[in-house]
Amino acid sequence: MKLHHVIESQQFSLPLLHELFQTAQRMEKVVARGGTKDYSGKIMASLFYEPSTRTRFSFESAMIRLGGRCISTESAREFSSIAKGETLEDSIRVINGYADVIVIRHNEVGAAKRAAAVSQIPVINAGDGIGQHPTQALLDLYTIQKELGNIDGLKIAMVGDLAQGRTVRSLTYLLSKFERVKIYFVAPETLKMKEDILQHLEEHNIWYAEETDLTKVAPEVDVVYQTRIQKERFGDRIEDYERSRGIYIIDPSILKLMNKRSIVMHPLPRVDEITIDVDTDQRAAYFRQAQNGLFVRMALLSMVLG
Amino acid sequence: MKLHHVIESQQFSLPLLHELFQTAQRMEKVVARGGTKDYSGKIMASLFYEPSTRTRFSFESAMIRLGGRCISTESAREFSSIAKGETLEDSIRVINGYADVIVIRHNEVGAAKRAAAVSQIPVINAGDGIGQHPTQALLDLYTIQKELGNIDGLKIAMVGDLAQGRTVRSLTYLLSKFERVKIYFVAPETLKMKEDILQHLEEHNIWYAEETDLTKVAPEVDVVYQTRIQKERFGDRIEDYERSRGIYIIDPSILKLMNKRSIVMHPLPRVDEITIDVDTDQRAAYFRQAQNGLFVRMALLSMVLG
Amino acid sequence: MKLHHVIESQQFSLPLLHELFQTAQRMEKVVARGGTKDYSGKIMASLFYEPSTRTRFSFESAMIRLGGRCISTESAREFSSIAKGETLEDSIRVINGYADVIVIRHNEVGAAKRAAAVSQIPVINAGDGIGQHPTQALLDLYTIQKELGNIDGLKIAMVGDLAQGRTVRSLTYLLSKFERVKIYFVAPETLKMKEDILQHLEEHNIWYAEETDLTKVAPEVDVVYQTRIQKERFGDRIEDYERSRGIYIIDPSILKLMNKRSIVMHPLPRVDEITIDVDTDQRAAYFRQAQNGLFVRMALLSMVLG
Repeated sequence: MKLHHVIESQQFSLPLLHELFQTAQRMEKVVARGGTKDYSGKIMASLFYEPSTRTRFSFESAMIRLGGRCISTESAREFSSIAKGETLEDSIRVINGYADVIVIRHNEVGAAKRAAAVSQIPVINAGDGIGQHPTQALLDLYTIQKELGNIDGLKIAMVGDLAQGRTVRSLTYLLSKFERVKIYFVAPETLKMKEDILQHLEEHNIWYAEETDLTKVAPEVDVVYQTRIQKERFGDRIEDYERSRGIYIIDPSILKLMNKRSIVMHPLPRVDEITIDVDTDQRAAYFRQAQNGLFVRMALLSMVLG
Repeated sequence: MKLHHVIESQQFSLPLLHELFQTAQRMEKVVARGGTKDYSGKIMASLFYEPSTRTRFSFESAMIRLGGRCISTESAREFSSIAKGETLEDSIRVINGYADVIVIRHNEVGAAKRAAAVSQIPVINAGDGIGQHPTQALLDLYTIQKELGNIDGLKIAMVGDLAQGRTVRSLTYLLSKFERVKIYFVAPETLKMKEDILQHLEEHNIWYAEETDLTKVAPEVDVVYQTRIQKERFGDRIEDYERSRGIYIIDPSILKLMNKRSIVMHPLPRVDEITIDVDTDQRAAYFRQAQNGLFVRMALLSMVLG
Repeated sequence: MKLHHVIESQQFSLPLLHELFQTAQRMEKVVARGGTKDYSGKIMASLFYEPSTRTRFSFESAMIRLGGRCISTESAREFSSIAKGETLEDSIRVINGYADVIVIRHNEVGAAKRAAAVSQIPVINAGDGIGQHPTQALLDLYTIQKELGNIDGLKIAMVGDLAQGRTVRSLTYLLSKFERVKIYFVAPETLKMKEDILQHLEEHNIWYAEETDLTKVAPEVDVVYQTRIQKERFGDRIEDYERSRGIYIIDPSILKLMNKRSIVMHPLPRVDEITIDVDTDQRAAYFRQAQNGLFVRMALLSMVLG
């Protein structure tokens, strides 16, 4: 299947997801045998207007494991010609002359789409503001498939900041493509999942429930998807932030309520919403999940580079 | 011909320019077939004391397309030992142990020359303050040659900030080596081309005229070389800046005055001095010009690395 | 011999030092013939929480000369998830999925040890606060061995900021493993070598003397190891800093007192504690010392990567 730009999770059909996951699985073997040289002539430009060392490292490692090379900026917003008044579109056109694929992270919603509109080389969205972060959602989904063997019939609790967390929004979109999925949204009143997503689920006949008690939900689900209450997204609403923190903590007492074959996921970074004594439990899947980011990003890069 | 350091445009004789352009042309073919491994053992150090993601990406892409590798800093001024009081000369001596070529961008005029004076490995000037930016001038010249087929007999209008713009200064120097060139300097009173350059042209019997009306000049020339009014070079002279902006805008009405086979060039980034509805006109050469930067920098790197 | 993490100079036994120096010597030949491809499948993560372009370039050049690749951050403290509250341990666990070796520089004493405790891939300490900087001490020792042919029987003067300079502390530890070493500590009253190190020397029967007059010591020693008075480590004790600067300056008058076959070393960067007219004297070993950093770091990387 043809894949050019990777802008939003909605663009992934079931067959495309299937192909992506098969490719990612193949990439696990490529990494195990020390990488490939297949893309040794290719250059990836990491264009990060909003810093994220983790995501950047993940993409750059993926490109290198494929044999490719990277040119990279950690803080394009501060350093680049944008400071001189250049438009994003012009920057992208110029970088088209220097690279074979652009990975962009930006602080403004829709930036990746604008970049793709003028780019002749593939653009991959590595997060734009509170908009999309499709590769995170794809690696989340890949992790569920790999850990549980199946996504159809999944029961999942999404916990924490559901209003502003772009990963849970994107993941919910993707899950709505599967069969018999049940989603529990567990959030404080101020951070509830927004109406547009709930409506989308209703239109697609996906079962969901809004809950406030994690202890009631934990025994019911295959996946507890915990998220960080993101202080930086609250701005000056400090009170809302303080009220929201600490309500839902995954600790051994929650683990005890969960099924033996269920897992705990988290997009990372975490602060204290999962206690560190959970880490050694086999059900703590979040570091494996981060590692899966490498395989999924290798798969995406190989697909867009052809 | 032997080329070691690349410090200023004056060092390029006609035969050397000829060799450079032939090499750049060959590099276009190298890129088209996916790059080379010829310099796979070589390391380029990007030492940027003044940030410029665009120029850095261009050099790093060039080095990678040649098969080489890069070590890179985006903001040496803020991050490096300079903060601890180290001289530029000491930094250069140390980096001599780690790299095969240094690309330096610095905020102080003459920094590249100082670096070259103590460096045993080649130093390439990627812009020093309001001083030189020779690789920009070389790619400008290469673009003119490639787009128009010839530089002798060229009629060119340089427009905008001619007093402080280092690219137009360097380009003028280079053009003075060619035959029957006619240069129109189109600038506001406060931003006129400086006396030293005009004197240089007179000494070399190059025809020039100082004009203020772009509509009068546009029909006469093969190249309209537009520049940005650089706010950052005005310091606190805000009034001068505001008075200078918006006087010369390239838009479809200017295009209409221009010859069919003429071109519009710009060193980029642009702000609003060329309107975006010009971009789709075949005569808008500025993105091709940026792309030529890759070929010219590949040629320079290959020449200094031998 | 097996080497996994490189955290502190104390971990290096004499046989391990011997192996390291033999490997570094081999690396000089590898570099002379243009590097190797032996580690072409390997990725080094440069994780610098405290900026140091010099040290980072040295490690990245070493990795590239070995054929490997780098993913790199100049200012992890400012840019990374640490700003969002992530622990160092979590960052390290995640990067374990993306790289084969981590080079860490951190502002907090003990950070490298904490990183190593949770890392399955090798961690190399590139300096943690006023704690350890073992690769600097190792390259210092390698330089002494290479320049003088032997370390047993060495007479060395350590000069300047001995209280806070981590390089002299680490080097002293390593020297205590050798035979018949004599160490002169030359420092202002406020910057004398700390008691723990002196006690360590006494326990290991290493001869040392505390001196204040450099002219008296200079004729006695094989090595004058000069250090910078590090302003940044004084905090607001400006008076202490000003009082300490300029007491010990290596200039031609000191050189005149020194033996013909002795050398001047300095971990760099220097400010004015060695005058530049010393640079051309054959005994000025500090730039060769910096170059040795490449060979020693190549040796360490090759040993931990196996």
